[in-house]
Parts: sequence; C-alpha cells; structure tokens
Amino acid sequence: MTNQAASTSKAAFLKLLCLTSDNDKMEVLRPFNPTAYGLNATFRLTRFSDAKGTVCKVSQGVLAKLLSPLRAAGPTANLKTKYADQRRFGIGTDCSVTPLRYGVSLVETTDLCYPIIDDPYMMGKIACANVLSDLYAMGVIECDNMLMLLTVSTKMTEKERDIVMPMIMRGFKDTASEAGTKIGGGQTIVNPFCTIGGVASAVCYPDEYIKPDNIMVGDVIVLTKPLGTLVAMIAHQWLDQPENWGRIRKVVSQEDVRRAYHQALNSMARLSRTAARLMHKYNAHGATDITGFGILGHAQALAAIQMQEVSLIIHNLPVIAKMADVAKACGDLFKLQEGHSPEVSGGLLICFSRDDAIEYCKEILDLEGAQAWIVGVVDKGNKTAQIIDNPNIFESLSKY
Amino acid sequence: MTNQAASTSKAAFLKLLCLTSDNDKMEVLRPFNPTAYGLNATFRLTRFSDAKGTVCKVSQGVLAKLLSPLRAAGPTANLKTKYADQRRFGIGTDCSVTPLRYGVSLVETTDLCYPIIDDPYMMGKIACANVLSDLYAMGVIECDNMLMLLTVSTKMTEKERDIVMPMIMRGFKDTASEAGTKIGGGQTIVNPFCTIGGVASAVCYPDEYIKPDNIMVGDVIVLTKPLGTLVAMIAHQWLDQPENWGRIRKVVSQEDVRRAYHQALNSMARLSRTAARLMHKYNAHGATDITGFGILGHAQALAAIQMQEVSLIIHNLPVIAKMADVAKACGDLFKLQEGHSPEVSGGLLICFSRDDAIEYCKEILDLEGAQAWIVGVVDKGNKTAQIIDNPNIFESLSKY
Repeated sequence: MTNQAASTSKAAFLKLLCLTSDNDKMEVLRPFNPTAYGLNATFRLTRFSDAKGTVCKVSQGVLAKLLSPLRAAGPTANLKTKYADQRRFGIGTDCSVTPLRYGVSLVETTDLCYPIIDDPYMMGKIACANVLSDLYAMGVIECDNMLMLLTVSTKMTEKERDIVMPMIMRGFKDTASEAGTKIGGGQTIVNPFCTIGGVASAVCYPDEYIKPDNIMVGDVIVLTKPLGTLVAMIAHQWLDQPENWGRIRKVVSQEDVRRAYHQALNSMARLSRTAARLMHKYNAHGATDITGFGILGHAQALAAIQMQEVSLIIHNLPVIAKMADVAKACGDLFKLQEGHSPEVSGGLLICFSRDDAIEYCKEILDLEGAQAWIVGVVDKGNKTAQIIDNPNIFESLSKY
Repeated sequence: MTNQAASTSKAAFLKLLCLTSDNDKMEVLRPFNPTAYGLNATFRLTRFSDAKGTVCKVSQGVLAKLLSPLRAAGPTANLKTKYADQRRFGIGTDCSVTPLRYGVSLVETTDLCYPIIDDPYMMGKIACANVLSDLYAMGVIECDNMLMLLTVSTKMTEKERDIVMPMIMRGFKDTASEAGTKIGGGQTIVNPFCTIGGVASAVCYPDEYIKPDNIMVGDVIVLTKPLGTLVAMIAHQWLDQPENWGRIRKVVSQEDVRRAYHQALNSMARLSRTAARLMHKYNAHGATDITGFGILGHAQALAAIQMQEVSLIIHNLPVIAKMADVAKACGDLFKLQEGHSPEVSGGLLICFSRDDAIEYCKEILDLEGAQAWIVGVVDKGNKTAQIIDNPNIFESLSKY
C-alpha cells in the first residue's frame, strides 16, 4: 500500500502535540545535550536536512530570473479589489493581505526552514520567530492564530523522533506564547529532510498594518538585527570538522565562534515585535524582513513593489562580530559583502524619514537593549536596490 | 555551504508562480501524457513520494494512541475564550476556530498530500479540494485566502520540475478559482518526496460556520462521496504492474479499474461547497470530512468532541463500483470494510435529524447530480463510533 495520503500523518502530529501538552512542565535542559535525553552523543539535528547544499544553489541561480518579472510587473503586487479603499497584496510582499468586509483585512504568511542548529528547542523558537517575522515586517503586532507545519525525517529513529520533535514543538509553542498568540492546529508530513515552519494569520483594521510600498526619496534605511547569522551557524558546525575549520582558523578563535554562535541564536530567536510596534510610532514608509535572499535580495524585492520611483542604496553592513572576517576567509562561499548571504529570522529593513529613523533607533535600544542601525538611503531611481562598492562593514558586539 | 534556510526557496516558488501566470492561457492537454510535454514516457508523478509505505504504517499504528487522549480530554478541543459567546476550537476538529473582536472568528486549516496520481494538473486540483474540504466540513462556504505549500522533489530533473510543478500549481489555482477564492502566497521547499497542499482561511460571523459538536441522539449520518478512492488509485497503478495485477484480475477487469479511477478522480476533485451550503439549510448538527483516517477514524474523532453522550453507528458503506471486490481480494491491505482505508478529498460525514437528512440527500442529488447516502445513526453512547458487523456494502455507480 504505497503513496498514501500524507494527511494520515495528522495522526503523528497530534500524537506529538499530545506529548508536548503532557510535558508542558518538562524541564528543557539548556544548553542541549543529546545524551541527557538518552540520545547518542553524535546526534546532530542539522544532519536531517539537505546536506548537498542544492537548495542554496538553485535559489541563488533563480534569484535574478525571479526579480526581473517582479520588477517589470511593478504594481501587480498591489491589486485593486472590490473594496475601494483597500488593496490586495500578494506575491512579492512578505504577507498576503486580503481585504474583507467591514474594512478589515486578513494578513497571512507562511515560512519554513531546515534545521540550522542542533538544539531542537532553540530551533523551534527560531522557526516560530522566523514565521512571525513576516507579519512584523508589515507592522502587524497581534497575531491571531498560528498553524505549525513540520516535516519529520524518515531517517530519524522512532526514539529520536519522539524526543526531538516534541522539543522543537515546545520551543515553537513557547515563542508563540511570548508573541501573545496560540497554535490552533497544524500538519506534519514525512520526508527525508526535516523542516520546521508554520503559518501566521492576523485580522487587521487598516491602521493595524503598514503598507510596504510608500517609501520616499530622502528616506533612510534602518536594519534591526545584525547580518551573518548563517555564517555564524556554519562556522560553529566547523568547530568539529577539522578540514573546514582549517579554512578560518587564522582569522577567528574557537571562543570567537562560540560567542558569535550565541549572539546569532539570541538574534534569530528574538521577536521583531517591538520593532514592529515602533514602526507605527515613527511612521514607517515600508519594510521587509531579511531571510533567505540576504539583505540585498530583500531590499531589491522591497524596492520593486514601491509606488514611487525610488532606489535603495545600502552603505553600511552591521555584522555579528568576527563573522565578516570568516566570510572573507571563505572566498565566494557566503557572499556576505555582496548582500546575498541568507539569514534566518533576520532583522527588519525599514524606511523612515531621517529624523524618525534616528528616534526609532534610540527607542529600540532603550526598550530592548538591542542596536538598530541606519544602513542606507533612498534616492530617486527605478525601483532597484544596491550595495555601494566597499560598504562600511562593522561589527555588532551586542548580545543580539 | 550546507543546511541553508529552506526559505531561500521562496525564490523557486515565485519563479514557478511566474511561469504559471505567464502560462495562464497554456493549453492543459487532457488526459495527461508525459510525452506531449517532452517528458519521458515513463515519467510517473507518483514515484516522487514515499514508496516504502511507511507513512501509512506509522499513522495506522498511532491512531489508537492518538484518539484515546483526545477522547479522554473531551471538551478540551473546545476551549473557553475571553469572548463569552464564542469558543475556540483547535486540535481534534477539522479547522482551528479563533474568536476575534466584534464577534467574528478566524477559521483556518492546512493539509498536504503526496502525489497519488500521475496527472499533475488533476493532482493540483485534488490537493486544493482536499485543503478546502476541512473548511466545508465546518460549514464555511467562503474561503477568504489560500496559501500554497509545495515540496519539489530533489529527484526531479530541472526539466521535469519546470514542466510538472507549474501544472500542479495551475490545477490548484483553477480549483481555488472554482471555489471563489484566490491564492495570496505560499512557500516551496525542497525534499526527496513531493508534497502538495496549502492553507485555507476564512473570517466568519457565528452563523457562517457550523460548530461540529452538537450531534444528538436520534440523528442520522450522511456521507456525500463514495469510499474507495485510494483503492481505485492503487488498482489503477497496478494496471502496469503484472505481479500486483495478478492479485485482483479475477475480480475486476481493466475496464472496471479505469472507470473506477475516473470516478475517483472526479470525486476527489469535486468541491464539497454545495454540500457545505446545504448543511446550513438543513440544520446540520456537526460534520467532518473523510481523509487519511478512513471513515471510521474520522467518525471516531467527530464522536470524541461531542457535547452530548452520543455514539455514531455506521451500517452502510457506499463504495466506488468494484472497489469493494478489489479490497476484499487484497486481504488485509486496504481495511476498507473496517473503515480504515484512507481517502483523499473524501466526502463530508454529517449528522442531521432524519427528516432533514432525507431532504438534504434529495437536494444535493438535484443540484450536483451526485448521490449522498444515509450511512448510519446516532445512539446514546460514550462518544465513540463503530461500524456494525457485516455492514451493507453497496456500489456507487455515479460519475462522482
């Protein structure tokens, strides 16, 4: 009996969720140590993903093709609807926005990622923050419901599955709770590579979300988290891979890498909810979040959907401490300086008037103890984005 | 550069969606013939899934464990909220229902399946109908937004991917359009097995959805599509597998199997939207849709969340013509008579008063030319469901 409906796996999902609920008070031992849970010391969550790196190659190759039709299409991301005062947003924006009756809109997003760290609980937290990040990029502060989407790896033993998946779900759930929302359901399917993600939905009045397409000439560009999360994750994996460690050991110490790893972890798990709330206070003109395309890819996608003829120019690249050196030592591998290094649950990239931007950065530092930076300016242009030659790359030393 | 964020595949998704939009007027040749698209004659979409049948085994084994905590938990599927007159539904129901401000609720569901047929366009249509089916089971007629979730197989060549995935998306999109809704976004990830699914969301006033937990003693149970879809799909795959064909050739002709296959295809692709609309007219007390757990599994899940002490007793099993014979010839393989044969995009199982049920079946036949059947009764009981010994198995000969 082959090729069965994967929907039968609803059963497995529910089972896991029951485990999670039963274990609501289970102690989550920090940091994660596989043997503390009876797993083999060599257990690595990151191995249950596409180890051949094909995902990245395909996507990077597709990027150029992808963005040209979007750019050409321009305002097609921004469609007229039967509700005269509201517009539907879809492909090309972080969320879909569907105008409904009585002036409300349904704002929704979905995102998934492979495990990028070996700690299941933290991976769950990061995956949840990563899903919510798209809502926050639209200035939505209250998420009404989340669905969890999991792919259990066929390569996991039953024991690994029953220990690790509930920990992932627990982390996801805890971060959802931190964000003031709940997980109303979900679905789990089975496949060789593990994936973790979900759906976030909010029903909003027009003043409860920020349309991303009002960026103006003279605006400046703010970034709310440092770049280099993926570089830090990979460098950390290389700590126990001597041949790879050899590529970077001249520019970085093991201690540096561990510190960068923890900074990246905190940064990825940190919700952009305060960042979103302050977007309203300081009258943001449009924003996106930095994930798989890197800062430049997302800046380009944001530029492409603008109503005004603008161009985003990035001068500054704040990077997790030492990770710019690591990226440089690896030649073409990361494309960090080019703005193409993928981030997971990266910061918001937001355009404000200059005065508002300065106040925004001050207040977010005040409230969260986390730095935000002015990284560029908005010029007149043809709805594109670029990083200047020799951008100013500087180190972020904060906890996040 | 390994273990990249799968979110980079947003690029691939968008690219495919662009292809689909560009090809909106592309001719979809029916029935699907791989060579007509320049693919190898041996191309089979169903091969890009879990060929080991493990999904099914895990899920069947987990079913008993799954349902006992749900049953014990009873009304936990039905939680109090800060909105006094509304309840939150979550795990254990077909959709999550989240009460919001001003008396509306967000009703959401997600579902995914492996390819169960080799025709990409029809597979897209079926997957979309399968996602929407959960909304229809809650009596929701207007879906406000859909997200598409695709997993592209790493085993596909680039050519196969670029031909087949847009056809799947086209089918999905066409059925969404038939349902009066739109696809606002989505996500694609890469994994060895292909999966096709999505999210469906609706914002509803209380009279726009039907709570599933009001089933009463004396009700009868209606089923709106015949069983045996999976049996028909498998039997059809066996047409060119001589060793498997040998198991059933004494009870069925090739012509019978082809007819059953087309009946199943039509049935799976058919939306349950009219079925949902008439649930309101005839005052349905609760419903679910039949998918991966089979009729009995879903009847049990529906029974478990009831407010009244009821028990669902199923006497009749309408089955796609000849497929009961096929299932019988295969011994324990399908568990059709036991009610555990998974269905994809199966019918709604609805409880009404007897008089309403009779009128409901009449009207749906009138409007859709498709039969619905009274398959059982509701007795006093402990929130379980069962099929009687020697149920009446009869053949459905209609087009759907």
